[in-house]
Amino acid sequence: MDWLDRIKWDRDGLVPVITQELGSGDVLMFAWMNREALAETTRRGEAVYWSRSRGRLWHKGEESGHFQKVHELRMDCDNDVLLLRVTQLGHDPSIACHTGRHSCFFQRWEQGAWHAVEPVLQSPERIYK
Amino acid sequence: MDWLDRIKWDRDGLVPVITQELGSGDVLMFAWMNREALAETTRRGEAVYWSRSRGRLWHKGEESGHFQKVHELRMDCDNDVLLLRVTQLGHDPSIACHTGRHSCFFQRWEQGAWHAVEPVLQSPERIYK
Repeated sequence: MDWLDRIKWDRDGLVPVITQELGSGDVLMFAWMNREALAETTRRGEAVYWSRSRGRLWHKGEESGHFQKVHELRMDCDNDVLLLRVTQLGHDPSIACHTGRHSCFFQRWEQGAWHAVEPVLQSPERIYK
Repeated sequence: MDWLDRIKWDRDGLVPVITQELGSGDVLMFAWMNREALAETTRRGEAVYWSRSRGRLWHKGEESGHFQKVHELRMDCDNDVLLLRVTQLGHDPSIACHTGRHSCFFQRWEQGAWHAVEPVLQSPERIYK
């Protein structure tokens, strides 16, 4: 499809994806998609990434129930980065991170060290039971 | 420095960086840093990236005047992506994109095509004069 060809896929056939929560504006996570993952995302209306560690499509929420409903898909000026605006489903308050936190970006730099500054909302043992 | 060693740099010695505007929550841009760029960013309190196209440090705003004051630096759960929260300086309303737009993510997917949906706030010819 033409709109898929407009994207500048990297040497591994992937594109970086930033996922932002629609209501809060919070950046929830960062992941990768290949052509198939992106086509699936637009077909389903839910985020489907390419898992580099597992080497397969990853329908976000397939194990945790924490699916992401996609409201908007954007591309940057260089056609090589995507931005998803989503509703994070499956838990209230919302959980995007596999550690059970709201956002994956829970470590804050303070005076030369990293500190975990967001609470665990649900234990990973309960999420991935 | 220990906090720099905590980061999982990729095979090119880089880490992806998402830059978000503090007040609006808008995702402004996506770029890369190497160790030196990140050390410079924390030292200056302004965003310094690694320009892959130019192969050198890039103090954002050095040509455009559109510097980014860094308020917060975060790292994700896998220690391989950074999130900067910044004030975008140099123009009101703020411009982060080299095309003269507020955000680099100005192309929206609509029914199988990409559409530029954000206005050019200042022409690139005026920015890079």
